[in-house]
Amino acid sequence: MLSTLPFTINALREAYASGTRPADVIDEIFSRLDAVGDPGIFIHLRDRDDLVAEANALGPYDPLVPLWGIPFAAKDNIDVAGIETTAGCPAYAYTPDQDAFVIAKLRAAGALMIGKTNLDQFATGLVGVRTPYGAPLNAVDPEIVPGGSSGGSGVIVGHGIVSFSLGTDTAGSGRVPAALNNIVGLKPTLGALSASGVVPACRTLDTVSIFAMTVDDAYAAFAVARGFDGKDAYSKPLVHEDLTEPPQPLRVGIPDAGSIEFFGDTVQQAAFERDVAALKARGAVCEEIDFEPLYAIARMLYEGAWVAERYTVIADLLASDPDAVHPVTRQIITHAESMSAADAFTGIYRLAELKRAAEPVLDKLDLLCVPTVPTFFSVADLEADPVTPNSNNGTYTNFVNLLDMCGLAVPTAPRSDGRPGSVTLLAAAGQDALVASVARGFEHDCPRNMGATGHAVPTPAPLPPATPDTIEIAVCGAHMTGLPLNWQLTDLGGRLLRSARTTPNYKFYALAGGPLARPGLIKAAGLHAGSIALEVWSLPATAFGAFMAGIPAPLGIGTIDLADGTSVKGFLCETAGLDGALDITSLGDWRVFIEQQSELA
Amino acid sequence: MLSTLPFTINALREAYASGTRPADVIDEIFSRLDAVGDPGIFIHLRDRDDLVAEANALGPYDPLVPLWGIPFAAKDNIDVAGIETTAGCPAYAYTPDQDAFVIAKLRAAGALMIGKTNLDQFATGLVGVRTPYGAPLNAVDPEIVPGGSSGGSGVIVGHGIVSFSLGTDTAGSGRVPAALNNIVGLKPTLGALSASGVVPACRTLDTVSIFAMTVDDAYAAFAVARGFDGKDAYSKPLVHEDLTEPPQPLRVGIPDAGSIEFFGDTVQQAAFERDVAALKARGAVCEEIDFEPLYAIARMLYEGAWVAERYTVIADLLASDPDAVHPVTRQIITHAESMSAADAFTGIYRLAELKRAAEPVLDKLDLLCVPTVPTFFSVADLEADPVTPNSNNGTYTNFVNLLDMCGLAVPTAPRSDGRPGSVTLLAAAGQDALVASVARGFEHDCPRNMGATGHAVPTPAPLPPATPDTIEIAVCGAHMTGLPLNWQLTDLGGRLLRSARTTPNYKFYALAGGPLARPGLIKAAGLHAGSIALEVWSLPATAFGAFMAGIPAPLGIGTIDLADGTSVKGFLCETAGLDGALDITSLGDWRVFIEQQSELA
Repeated sequence: MLSTLPFTINALREAYASGTRPADVIDEIFSRLDAVGDPGIFIHLRDRDDLVAEANALGPYDPLVPLWGIPFAAKDNIDVAGIETTAGCPAYAYTPDQDAFVIAKLRAAGALMIGKTNLDQFATGLVGVRTPYGAPLNAVDPEIVPGGSSGGSGVIVGHGIVSFSLGTDTAGSGRVPAALNNIVGLKPTLGALSASGVVPACRTLDTVSIFAMTVDDAYAAFAVARGFDGKDAYSKPLVHEDLTEPPQPLRVGIPDAGSIEFFGDTVQQAAFERDVAALKARGAVCEEIDFEPLYAIARMLYEGAWVAERYTVIADLLASDPDAVHPVTRQIITHAESMSAADAFTGIYRLAELKRAAEPVLDKLDLLCVPTVPTFFSVADLEADPVTPNSNNGTYTNFVNLLDMCGLAVPTAPRSDGRPGSVTLLAAAGQDALVASVARGFEHDCPRNMGATGHAVPTPAPLPPATPDTIEIAVCGAHMTGLPLNWQLTDLGGRLLRSARTTPNYKFYALAGGPLARPGLIKAAGLHAGSIALEVWSLPATAFGAFMAGIPAPLGIGTIDLADGTSVKGFLCETAGLDGALDITSLGDWRVFIEQQSELA
Repeated sequence: MLSTLPFTINALREAYASGTRPADVIDEIFSRLDAVGDPGIFIHLRDRDDLVAEANALGPYDPLVPLWGIPFAAKDNIDVAGIETTAGCPAYAYTPDQDAFVIAKLRAAGALMIGKTNLDQFATGLVGVRTPYGAPLNAVDPEIVPGGSSGGSGVIVGHGIVSFSLGTDTAGSGRVPAALNNIVGLKPTLGALSASGVVPACRTLDTVSIFAMTVDDAYAAFAVARGFDGKDAYSKPLVHEDLTEPPQPLRVGIPDAGSIEFFGDTVQQAAFERDVAALKARGAVCEEIDFEPLYAIARMLYEGAWVAERYTVIADLLASDPDAVHPVTRQIITHAESMSAADAFTGIYRLAELKRAAEPVLDKLDLLCVPTVPTFFSVADLEADPVTPNSNNGTYTNFVNLLDMCGLAVPTAPRSDGRPGSVTLLAAAGQDALVASVARGFEHDCPRNMGATGHAVPTPAPLPPATPDTIEIAVCGAHMTGLPLNWQLTDLGGRLLRSARTTPNYKFYALAGGPLARPGLIKAAGLHAGSIALEVWSLPATAFGAFMAGIPAPLGIGTIDLADGTSVKGFLCETAGLDGALDITSLGDWRVFIEQQSELA
């Protein structure tokens, strides 16, 4: 029954594999839209027949096409060829003749773009109601704001009508709607998703973002949409990482008592404390830090020079037709008219100084964990005061792009009053895989439904372990602590982990030649074998090649069996290199041999 | 005889080691200054007795202190505790109570700061004559401008009075005076030398720079002065690299015929062509590229928003006492008053786009080689037109910091008219060691004196070879092309280099166990040994650890002797792992064994 199917990517792929046709899914989308009956979600919804024609052009179902037949929506500041891009402002609208870079990528991977969603005009806002197109209603509770600026994109996923949607995020527009609609909001590292064909807000701080019902779905769409774009001056050639188990223990910073802010919402506070406890239960080491320095950075976004970035986008429109701009938006953006180029650079310096000051604290942490929103505001709150609740909503989001961090807002279990729980995990640029893998933990631990659907979030599949960034190596001769070649390990960043012994199945030799005596360790069962002393060192995996390059024949690196039942990479010797070697197996330890030698000398 | 000693660092260290006292060197400095008789070099020259007292406090000569007793000068926009910093503007002057970060580093390494040098006011200019303190005279030809903005610092090294000096470089102030005074000008990667205690010009584009008589002296001072400074928001934690032989062949970009510019100076053109020929003779592959995109970037420095950075520095002074600012400097900087914050961001976007457009060409090159200056201008030229010759002097310098490149201006042989030759080598951020090592080639090949001294530049000592960034590995089994484990190499960036065979001294086995058959190669002389087929692959050295981690016992990596007389790292097998193995030595090639197996199956 398609009508009861959650539209996660996996569920749809299974349905397609079992014979469901895209036309059935498209019909179900329109049926669900009818049932919701919210005209504020889309600024432009595509025609059913066009969609079916596009889906049919995909040919038969192909499981190797990662988003085959997967429906998605796009915020209406992202170009889709042949459909008007409004950015929430009719007077600004234009009709692009090609897809934005990310839309083209998603469509090439089989995804079906079903419509362009409503937004806070020019992506300026975190509430979703600053639009002349009639605000969408929050999917889980129509009294609270839908969140913005990517309001329609958050609501459509909250209703489970599409598998994912695209938003954009400058201040928090890809995260706040996620918290308010009980869904995932993936805000990538700046430059990971191309901005070609996207209406800028603050071009130096913008990113396309992704809403989905699960972390895996958001990450799957991200993996397809990302990629370097030589036509976008702010695109970056970042390495994509598949999800792996996060390292243990994670060091997670959370706001301390003096700087955490819920605007009196004790229910939200209790939910956050519960969510931090869940993180700790999964092994995280949480450290309370002062968020005041981050709030100082956040304030620069609207109080500082960056408003001038928004001004560059609509300067012509403000000059020719100021009334075409939403009055609240206009009030915010025209603030830039009083700022000079010197003010801009002064702001840029101040940001650099605030970043530098924050680094010593942030560099010691793997992640930050914050409430995505400090509290909930109603549509009525915004009617009474269109600015303050909006600003408050950005408490834990506004500093993020100024600091070039990546983040992911993930639902947690509902609060005690039933409203959605949500935390955002934040990490340094490039750590998109880390935040996603940690966020999945909340899908394990926090029973909840996806968005406003009645469907429980599926338990995520296990992840492969992370590739270790160090390699253990056992040394048995001149590389041991205090001996002449030990510097080869320490120079490469090696660290002594422990002393150990081999199983009793090794022969040990002092090789012929010199001047520096070298050990020969050879696996050989039997009466004359013994257990040999070793040191186990840790080397950065990236340094291992340089270490290997310096190892001369007949020595090499193989696997050594240790007396404790484990094995480790370490120095072995070719049997062919034993001509003239001295059997020192009975000494059992290179240092004993060295001492004997020096006594003889 | 100290009076005939060139004041290179090595020569002074040898003199100190032989008993020369710093007081003798200080006396010789004052004697040389008297002989030169140019009151425009220093804004503040320290008192002889103070200097001697400071030198005596160093204690006896210590060869382990890298700059023990080495005299240097600092541009007067860099703080020295207790001495007025003027930035070339008496009304701006202040007396700092601590040394700039770089000064403190140099003094801690034993260097003696002898005075503060004259400059184009606020480091705005490339000519050295925009100063109310009376311009210094060019060291090699008093009719041409000294170069700027670090004029005094260039001239003092040109006269060989100090071993090195500090300048600053935004547009080219660390390179143009080097070309005009026949010395080396090292312009580091932005952020390598702290700006703490330095008067900014354009804070996002400034760097302290170093003048010296030889590349090695400049690099030695750089190695001491550099280092991360948490108090400078633009300091970067860069890795310091010692000089090594540059890789071969170097890919060097030079301006093509349509974009090279000498302003009619055919002598300069001939000198540059000669210098490029010298680069080629040393093995460089030179490619002519269109410099127009770089010139477009260069124009942004004074025509675009970056002038507003200079404005932030002196806005208060311009408001309170505009006549205190040099009229040419004032004319340039007050241009910023008409620019808005939106203009600033528009300029920042434009720069990002121009950078992006230039990347495809630059990314294919190791270096750029340009004439440091396109031609020479006289003091009289600047009196006639204070702006145009200055702009022209920056033809090959102004784009560099906007592109975040590092560079080094190195003298070449004199031009046919006797004026100094100079090229600047430019490379991507962080490649300071590369540009310095390549620049040393010109000290080998281009006979010249150092600055205006009569001393020939010493031949630089040989450099150690560079650490290879790949490692060769020989595979003899399932890792070979087309076989089941080949992906382990290709996934890590491996490249097939060649097929090869071992010497005839190996035994070759198919090991017991499975399901995947594994080869055992063991060195063993004798009748039953043979020569075994291999493939030699190249792996990134940093990937070798990951590769090694996947190699199970009894296999390991050791050294394999090849039939061509060379040796290579590759797969070996422990003798203890041969239980039940099949001797396939006579087949000589794993693929022959695999074919036999599949025929049997």
